[in-house]
Amino acid sequence: MPPSFSHLVASLNLSQPFPGRRELERKRGRPYRLRLGANECLFGMSPAVSRVLATRGGELPYYSDPAQLELRTAIAQGRGLTHEHVVVAEGIEGLLGLFTRAYLDPGDTAVTSLGGYPSFDYYVRGCGGRLVHVPYTRAGWNDLDALVDAARRQRAKLLYLANPDNPTGTHHGPAELERLLDQLPEECLLLLDEAYVEFADPGSVLPFTRSRPHLVRLRTFSKAYGLAAARVGYALASPEQVSTLDRIRQHFAVSQLSQELALAAWRDVDFLGQVIGATREGREHYAELARRVGATVLPSSANFVSFDFGGTTRARAVARWLDEKDILVRHPSEPFGQLVRITVGPLAARELLAEVLASAPSP
Amino acid sequence: MPPSFSHLVASLNLSQPFPGRRELERKRGRPYRLRLGANECLFGMSPAVSRVLATRGGELPYYSDPAQLELRTAIAQGRGLTHEHVVVAEGIEGLLGLFTRAYLDPGDTAVTSLGGYPSFDYYVRGCGGRLVHVPYTRAGWNDLDALVDAARRQRAKLLYLANPDNPTGTHHGPAELERLLDQLPEECLLLLDEAYVEFADPGSVLPFTRSRPHLVRLRTFSKAYGLAAARVGYALASPEQVSTLDRIRQHFAVSQLSQELALAAWRDVDFLGQVIGATREGREHYAELARRVGATVLPSSANFVSFDFGGTTRARAVARWLDEKDILVRHPSEPFGQLVRITVGPLAARELLAEVLASAPSP
Repeated sequence: MPPSFSHLVASLNLSQPFPGRRELERKRGRPYRLRLGANECLFGMSPAVSRVLATRGGELPYYSDPAQLELRTAIAQGRGLTHEHVVVAEGIEGLLGLFTRAYLDPGDTAVTSLGGYPSFDYYVRGCGGRLVHVPYTRAGWNDLDALVDAARRQRAKLLYLANPDNPTGTHHGPAELERLLDQLPEECLLLLDEAYVEFADPGSVLPFTRSRPHLVRLRTFSKAYGLAAARVGYALASPEQVSTLDRIRQHFAVSQLSQELALAAWRDVDFLGQVIGATREGREHYAELARRVGATVLPSSANFVSFDFGGTTRARAVARWLDEKDILVRHPSEPFGQLVRITVGPLAARELLAEVLASAPSP
Repeated sequence: MPPSFSHLVASLNLSQPFPGRRELERKRGRPYRLRLGANECLFGMSPAVSRVLATRGGELPYYSDPAQLELRTAIAQGRGLTHEHVVVAEGIEGLLGLFTRAYLDPGDTAVTSLGGYPSFDYYVRGCGGRLVHVPYTRAGWNDLDALVDAARRQRAKLLYLANPDNPTGTHHGPAELERLLDQLPEECLLLLDEAYVEFADPGSVLPFTRSRPHLVRLRTFSKAYGLAAARVGYALASPEQVSTLDRIRQHFAVSQLSQELALAAWRDVDFLGQVIGATREGREHYAELARRVGATVLPSSANFVSFDFGGTTRARAVARWLDEKDILVRHPSEPFGQLVRITVGPLAARELLAEVLASAPSP
């Protein structure tokens, strides 16, 4: 008889939040022409990043700075923070794994939106945590009052909110978030996933302050910075939270090369600005495309736009049509079956998308 | 009041297994000339790896194949295994994190050697596991009988053995491991850390078989393959173990670029052979160096050699002398205070080491 798994792991179902593009391509037997399904940066990467790759690749045989001091210091600067407020880990995925473990004992409760980003659910389950899901509003926004209310009633340890949201793209401004933080029960931590925040109007982003023991902000180099494969995310948190994660994090998980790639991307504000500008143009283009095919769009502050086709049948048909034409998009599960989430790409990609959408079979 | 950490995480002490080179350099105020402390590959990297970096770097904006099918299939081939026997994760560190979580409920027991590789202890503590440490033999070998005996008496779920061992470099052959596996209690899994196995005599390595429910073998691209910064390790395990880890692993943690770098390194058997050959030469050179300074060496099957200076005072003095001369080595803690562990480098590095060692103050 083989040794037995832990009770916790034995009790888990297999749940992989996302199939990878290559898995899908293996199943369908041919590659995609356009990859608009994973909200990657389709505008390439900074020339500074290419230079790091060309000049620092020889560092591959060596281990990293486990304290990531240079990168953390750069991230803190200009925000009134120090490196002691910054945790660097293997993407927001790595951070979700760390923060759920840091706060949840088995049986503890976490609250999130029903139909939101599924990775949080995955990590909560992996800690033996109990999940409470709160429906979005009918218009497709996170229901902040209902989320706080559930956190209070359920004595939640964690409340997870993606802002801008995934898969809707909607974004709550500072006043609404301040109100949420004011109302949050004292024992509950808000994990604010800001993976897409660089694409939002800067005036709509919650300002930084040092002393917010109930707020941790999660950010990533995978989206606006074009470094999904470098696996670098960071959290802005309290020094106590940062040093506590040192007890459980993988200290060497973010390689020196990844740290230097991230630092180069961080410093290239021009490239970041170009990506953001091109993404805004693309969002407007998508709104026009949607009108042409009889769909509406949810207001997006991210690098994707969710097209609303009015019903699951039509949305599924459109997603299938695009797939047949080798364009990968994401058709979310319920309660968002009426949506098709499409990453914003450069003009040529959008024109190809427009052409294929125009030829989609009528409803 | 800030939200409270989980009971488990609140109970943990901060323990970082290894300070990074850059942390040490920041403290001492200047860089090292020779980095012989972390058992990295000091023979560079495969030209095939450089080619992947040059031609595939443009993939940095994109996510990976979460199933890592190509790499897992390559690793399985020629071993009578399939990809279903292979788990790929972020180095052996990532695998230790996964396997301890997969097997240990809080309070469960794990057995390992006292003074062995500290990462296992770190991950066991992080799961709330109980650690039982078994002394090495007086000659500096893992005491296999005593380890099995402890596993039986303590009803251990996991037994961790590094083979070749770290920090001693000693290596147990197939007959001894078969005996250990025969005697292992049914409820206990042997985690065999083979990070350095490529440097051992091939005839001394346990052959592969499919059906060993009590054995998981951990390997890495960080040592012989020269890819510490790509963060790729793999486990050879049963299909049930492999699929169970899918419930808790970070599916996208090993980037596509890292998978392709590892695959290129895997296929370049010539480069691997050169590294192994040069390392063997270097081990012999180190044995001679040790004799010249009145030390002995432990028999090493790894890419490092542990010099035995007969006592902690002398070993510490030598390690300090080397540090003053900008040569980084590792001085293990007790019970191995008499050792100085030195990574095997190319000839020029060994000659510089020899020169500095020769001028060390007398005992």
